[in-house]
Amino acid sequence: METAIIDDRIMEELRDAVGGENVFDTIEERGCHSFDATQERSLPELVIRPHTTEHVARVVTIANRNSIPIYPRGSGTGLLGDAGYIRCGIVLDLKNMDKILALNVRDLTVTVQPGVLIRDLQDVAAKQKLFYPPGPGSAGFSTIGGNVAECSGGVTGMKYGVTRDYVLALEAVLPDGSIINTGRKTLKSVAGYDLTRFLVGSEGTLGIYTQITLKLLPMPQKRGTIISYFRDFHDAMKTSDSIQVENRILPRSIEFADMECIKAFGEVSEVTIPEGAKALLLIDVDGNEKNVTNDVSKIEGICRENSALKCEIVKREDERNSLWQMMKSVLPSLFKIATTEFSEAFCVPRSKVLEVLEKVYGLSATTSIRVAAFGHIGEGHIHLNIMSDKREDEVLIRGFIGKVVKEVVSIGGTLKAGQGVDDVKTEFVELELTDQEIGLMKDLKRMFDPKDIMNPGKIFT
Amino acid sequence: METAIIDDRIMEELRDAVGGENVFDTIEERGCHSFDATQERSLPELVIRPHTTEHVARVVTIANRNSIPIYPRGSGTGLLGDAGYIRCGIVLDLKNMDKILALNVRDLTVTVQPGVLIRDLQDVAAKQKLFYPPGPGSAGFSTIGGNVAECSGGVTGMKYGVTRDYVLALEAVLPDGSIINTGRKTLKSVAGYDLTRFLVGSEGTLGIYTQITLKLLPMPQKRGTIISYFRDFHDAMKTSDSIQVENRILPRSIEFADMECIKAFGEVSEVTIPEGAKALLLIDVDGNEKNVTNDVSKIEGICRENSALKCEIVKREDERNSLWQMMKSVLPSLFKIATTEFSEAFCVPRSKVLEVLEKVYGLSATTSIRVAAFGHIGEGHIHLNIMSDKREDEVLIRGFIGKVVKEVVSIGGTLKAGQGVDDVKTEFVELELTDQEIGLMKDLKRMFDPKDIMNPGKIFT
Repeated sequence: METAIIDDRIMEELRDAVGGENVFDTIEERGCHSFDATQERSLPELVIRPHTTEHVARVVTIANRNSIPIYPRGSGTGLLGDAGYIRCGIVLDLKNMDKILALNVRDLTVTVQPGVLIRDLQDVAAKQKLFYPPGPGSAGFSTIGGNVAECSGGVTGMKYGVTRDYVLALEAVLPDGSIINTGRKTLKSVAGYDLTRFLVGSEGTLGIYTQITLKLLPMPQKRGTIISYFRDFHDAMKTSDSIQVENRILPRSIEFADMECIKAFGEVSEVTIPEGAKALLLIDVDGNEKNVTNDVSKIEGICRENSALKCEIVKREDERNSLWQMMKSVLPSLFKIATTEFSEAFCVPRSKVLEVLEKVYGLSATTSIRVAAFGHIGEGHIHLNIMSDKREDEVLIRGFIGKVVKEVVSIGGTLKAGQGVDDVKTEFVELELTDQEIGLMKDLKRMFDPKDIMNPGKIFT
Repeated sequence: METAIIDDRIMEELRDAVGGENVFDTIEERGCHSFDATQERSLPELVIRPHTTEHVARVVTIANRNSIPIYPRGSGTGLLGDAGYIRCGIVLDLKNMDKILALNVRDLTVTVQPGVLIRDLQDVAAKQKLFYPPGPGSAGFSTIGGNVAECSGGVTGMKYGVTRDYVLALEAVLPDGSIINTGRKTLKSVAGYDLTRFLVGSEGTLGIYTQITLKLLPMPQKRGTIISYFRDFHDAMKTSDSIQVENRILPRSIEFADMECIKAFGEVSEVTIPEGAKALLLIDVDGNEKNVTNDVSKIEGICRENSALKCEIVKREDERNSLWQMMKSVLPSLFKIATTEFSEAFCVPRSKVLEVLEKVYGLSATTSIRVAAFGHIGEGHIHLNIMSDKREDEVLIRGFIGKVVKEVVSIGGTLKAGQGVDDVKTEFVELELTDQEIGLMKDLKRMFDPKDIMNPGKIFT
């Protein structure tokens, strides 16, 4: 499939459709769009940067007529190969569609183009004392279009839900080039089938979002943060359970990191890590002033009851920011300490987290593969970094991942928890989904995109 | 379509499939299932009460093979004609599938059969200090299956979202009789397309839920309630705005009732209504002890700033219950005061509520039609009761509804806000949805149900 299929005539049509200045065919531009954060190299024939919905519709219409693959692209921050399937065809780079079209303070809604960065969206909302919760760790450089395509979870999911819960309406270009409007800009809408949520999480395989209307919340008045270290994962998990289940506190986040991650923190930040710490919890609560004060002191007590080695209530805003920065940079930190690594994410029922991690560490102990786990423990959402110092261990690592995936699926978990099925996991999708589910999904894909031009190869092998 | 199509052979097959004791063809049983709360009469040929998923699958398989319409049915509490399309075929009454299959306290999930009453589900969860928020006014007699089919909103939607936000996984029987499992029992799951949320709100036209796994939350420690009366709707709306937008408080509910409703309350309850009250707000907050105390006193202040005629913090649990009981019984109360009435619900952007109600009251003032409005004002969700003392005004009322629907749609609102498209509104669906959306939805319906046996006539004309 590496042969060029965009001939001069089609090129001319595309230039007419969006303006020659938005069509790029130099090797430099194509090269820049040939990989995402997974660095799996491949080369598109053309990069197009549309500015309007009409641009997108025209490009897709031409692509459809000529059966040319289209790869919509946000900022390429996906860690799971989300933008890594490019083999030929057109990369549609949406970064110029980055306008905040309407912020309606009284309606608590905002309408944006897909290329808006999550951080920018959150900042604009915050100026009006409004809050868009589902920001991923990469909020500073990931786009809302990408977040909707992947149904990103973010770090506040346990209290505030995931991207899907905030998408009220979509304008999207379907694979035939037509423009559809789904949903309503109201907080409740259920007329007909829910095409909006059906398009959310479809990973660019059913259409390209060109306008996204999101629900906003009033900004919580205050945040409170506790950092706590534990001797082992058992104590950390018991603490998380006690907070949520016994004490009925619903924090904004309960982030977990294991010993390998804590070591990596030690290298990049100034935190003093107590001797023997094998697990860390970073817990955030929010609400009004009194609420936060109350929850924070209660959580501190719960950490101590569960034998925390060290537990601190974070007093200053800059301290909180640097702790969160540390958590968010765990992955880049880990990438520095091994030559070969894969990053996986999964979600299991909360009560099974311990079981899965025991399996993972057990597997690791018997091979040369090192693992580092961190994640949103309050939701059972775990990121796993699987590392080796040898390039040639890649096959070993893939086998390791296969075993973890089987374990996750067998206890009722899911391979994906807010990021796309990557090329490693695509082969395991069939473990999690039944033949019937896959059949139905393929039928749906065929109905929307009979020529299979939208992100071909994505989701299904 | 009134002709019988279930012959002796098919009857025999159905009896074999589910046991003769679960198949009912007496005129009494058929009559009992011939109407829902809208009392639009029509008669099924047969009523079947399955006990298991396999029963449902067998009945649907037989129905599919013989092209017999199937009408799944919860408890028939829908006010918008949701179960009112029955013309012939089989009513599948799911009330015997009423088991709570698994309550997993540590996972914060529950798996239930579709016939479980919302109230029972909430009570079982509450015993474990867990909370299933989206309970409609009719929680005491509406089923979870019906709530999922209609994606019910409930009275706590502004803080806690709607039914869709709580459905993690489904077991469903598709129109061909096959059993599908969608979603995972984890808090995040996005493997492949989101079939789970696609089935939520499909109003029994794509399949029959046989098991539903729901997310639960820790039960809030405390509730607080304020009741406040206003001179006019402007003051009430300003109060709601000030609470949410300026003061960033996110109550559990802000319920509104207009003058006609207040009059109806006067007849059924002991509340003392201040002279000149034309609008009422019933506001509930929840959270921990201090949080609630704080929010309640702040909201009381906001009500007074906005010229409340009377504002009371509700101190006792029994008082709160009777006020909520009063709100929930507004519809039955209204049904007593007019011979002909229609109940409609819609949702508009919050900032447009005033505009719509002005239109509604303006229309009412120029005709013999009376209106009573109430609803979840914090979300822009309004129930409208349109009444006349003359039977023959029905045509006039339908015309009135048409005008309201046009207004709602023109300002970006939606006809449905958690209940099915009824027979009055079906004809207006095309105002709200574009031809393309309807086309796509019909394609989806055809894909799932090529013989159109599942709840035929529902959603689309």
